[in-house]
Amino acid sequence: MQNSWLQQPLKAIDDGCYAESLAHQAQLTKPAGSLGQLESIACRLAAMQQRRDPDASRVRICLFAADHGIARAGVSAFPQEVTVQMVANFSQGGAAISVLARSLGAELEVVDMGTCSSPLSIERVVDRAIGPGTRSFEQEPAMNRQQLEQALAAGAERVEEAFDRGCDLFIAGEMGIGNTSSATAIAAALLDRAPSELVGPGTGIDREHVTRKAELIAAALQLHREGGVDLSEPLAVLECVGGFEIAAMTGAYLRCAQLGIPMLVDGFISSAAFLCAERLAPGCREWAFVGHCSAEPGHRILLESMVMDPLLQLQMRLGEGSGAAVAVPLLRSACALHNQMATFAQAGVSAGD
Amino acid sequence: MQNSWLQQPLKAIDDGCYAESLAHQAQLTKPAGSLGQLESIACRLAAMQQRRDPDASRVRICLFAADHGIARAGVSAFPQEVTVQMVANFSQGGAAISVLARSLGAELEVVDMGTCSSPLSIERVVDRAIGPGTRSFEQEPAMNRQQLEQALAAGAERVEEAFDRGCDLFIAGEMGIGNTSSATAIAAALLDRAPSELVGPGTGIDREHVTRKAELIAAALQLHREGGVDLSEPLAVLECVGGFEIAAMTGAYLRCAQLGIPMLVDGFISSAAFLCAERLAPGCREWAFVGHCSAEPGHRILLESMVMDPLLQLQMRLGEGSGAAVAVPLLRSACALHNQMATFAQAGVSAGD
Repeated sequence: MQNSWLQQPLKAIDDGCYAESLAHQAQLTKPAGSLGQLESIACRLAAMQQRRDPDASRVRICLFAADHGIARAGVSAFPQEVTVQMVANFSQGGAAISVLARSLGAELEVVDMGTCSSPLSIERVVDRAIGPGTRSFEQEPAMNRQQLEQALAAGAERVEEAFDRGCDLFIAGEMGIGNTSSATAIAAALLDRAPSELVGPGTGIDREHVTRKAELIAAALQLHREGGVDLSEPLAVLECVGGFEIAAMTGAYLRCAQLGIPMLVDGFISSAAFLCAERLAPGCREWAFVGHCSAEPGHRILLESMVMDPLLQLQMRLGEGSGAAVAVPLLRSACALHNQMATFAQAGVSAGD
Repeated sequence: MQNSWLQQPLKAIDDGCYAESLAHQAQLTKPAGSLGQLESIACRLAAMQQRRDPDASRVRICLFAADHGIARAGVSAFPQEVTVQMVANFSQGGAAISVLARSLGAELEVVDMGTCSSPLSIERVVDRAIGPGTRSFEQEPAMNRQQLEQALAAGAERVEEAFDRGCDLFIAGEMGIGNTSSATAIAAALLDRAPSELVGPGTGIDREHVTRKAELIAAALQLHREGGVDLSEPLAVLECVGGFEIAAMTGAYLRCAQLGIPMLVDGFISSAAFLCAERLAPGCREWAFVGHCSAEPGHRILLESMVMDPLLQLQMRLGEGSGAAVAVPLLRSACALHNQMATFAQAGVSAGD
């Protein structure tokens, strides 16, 4: 395979640093364990970063956008041109993720992975377009192997760029009308579940359309299975039913775990991409936090399959990386508490039993 | 009754402003409802503040500290002197709430409501000490009616001060070794539940001590009931089994709802104080958000009894207002999204079905 980088080992987490961080937490002026998940967040981040003082200051949000052939089958409440319109909105600062990135002081990068209108003449959008969106996976593979490798490599390359510039925390976001259908197909294939168990309203289709969406995905998976595709193999699944932006996210997550960049995973589509990365290289999850559990029903099933706990449950279902971005302050609070609280000895406070 | 302010009506929430905010949310460039609870947070806050652009910038955290006679019955993992030691730690900036307040740019005020060492010679601590802690409620009423009125009024007065200086969001915090016992007794009395259903490890006592704590509280409630006290009456309950800091919080919450200041409620002890406010003046809850659901088992029961949804569930159980403080960025994100996102028309994005 051309993409030999896929086989590179993941960076090891520093267990000694984790143990030291736990010992530090036990000295802070609070009952043991009383900061709950904030304590484990700080300790895990310290171990990933090999620092005594974990840091979530420099956040890079990389938003991958692409179109999906499946969108023409009527699986979304929005017309396909919305993908490109939203890319312009990201660039102009009016979208949810634009607002959140600004509030966080995070860098937001938008990457065109291939839309109906690519190449896009939109300012500040990084052009990695592979084609005019994927082909419709109900009829044929969404992309060929070369396109898949190109998408994975583009995700990895954007992570390398973030790494070179300094990045404490990486968030991948996505935009692509129709991409909950692609994510549902990926999850159904890799988890061997019926699409009807995983499918949801996405951007807001009604019950009848959700049923149709599930049937369409089930039929598509059957078609590819009968065509001889091994639907337990993550690259084959991405090729058959994935999206350019989803494959780019898989490449990005994998590269983060190879380089040792902590990740904050967003919602359903991000987690489908993450599942592919975890299947390609088990242990990616050691480098990841999960920002939230989406209202899209398949998200909880995806997270449970990887034994990953979400930080927030706010019934969000927007994508763009928004659920991860909303969770960033929790990581920052965890770091501040870990780094700035006084110990019992420093404060002259009597320790408990 | 001397405290006639208790009978003042609550400020009304502006329903028109709420409806306008909902209509505004529907115009923003996202699928309808896809920001989940962040949408309702923004709309509720807008209605409370009677603003088009809700704001959670100016946060006042008022931390009430007091000692409890019940602590001498061995209900805590920490010795009683820790209350005062922690007040010094708050003042010196080393406690969890000090770190969080600093990170948020929030004002932290510490109020001495009456500890074993009052008056405290600790810098920047507001002296409202009522006595050297409460009496032990297993033997006699924790305080008399005059002390209760003084505590309620002190809480109200700190809110008035915050109101005069400008406050977008009010958080009450507490410190008092033994105060989970007091909060459990209050909740058991007002919800008519057995203390064994509500009791928890507090700062970290073992199972045997938790059982003993429940028995002690049950016996105390029985004693006061037999003494002719109406345990469904919030003021009587605060007088018999409350704490100076808990009564101050009740007064503070009530005054917030009278003046129209949005509140963010913290954990188990705060919620027991809030329940007293809600029973005194039904509708206080319309002015409140709940920061988190604590690991202390009684907290969920308290919140369910008032039909209040917590924003976070991070297994925190520290008190001090910390769980509310950690949730502040969610309110700020909700405001930023509501105020700064582009509409479909502004961004030239096609609306959905």
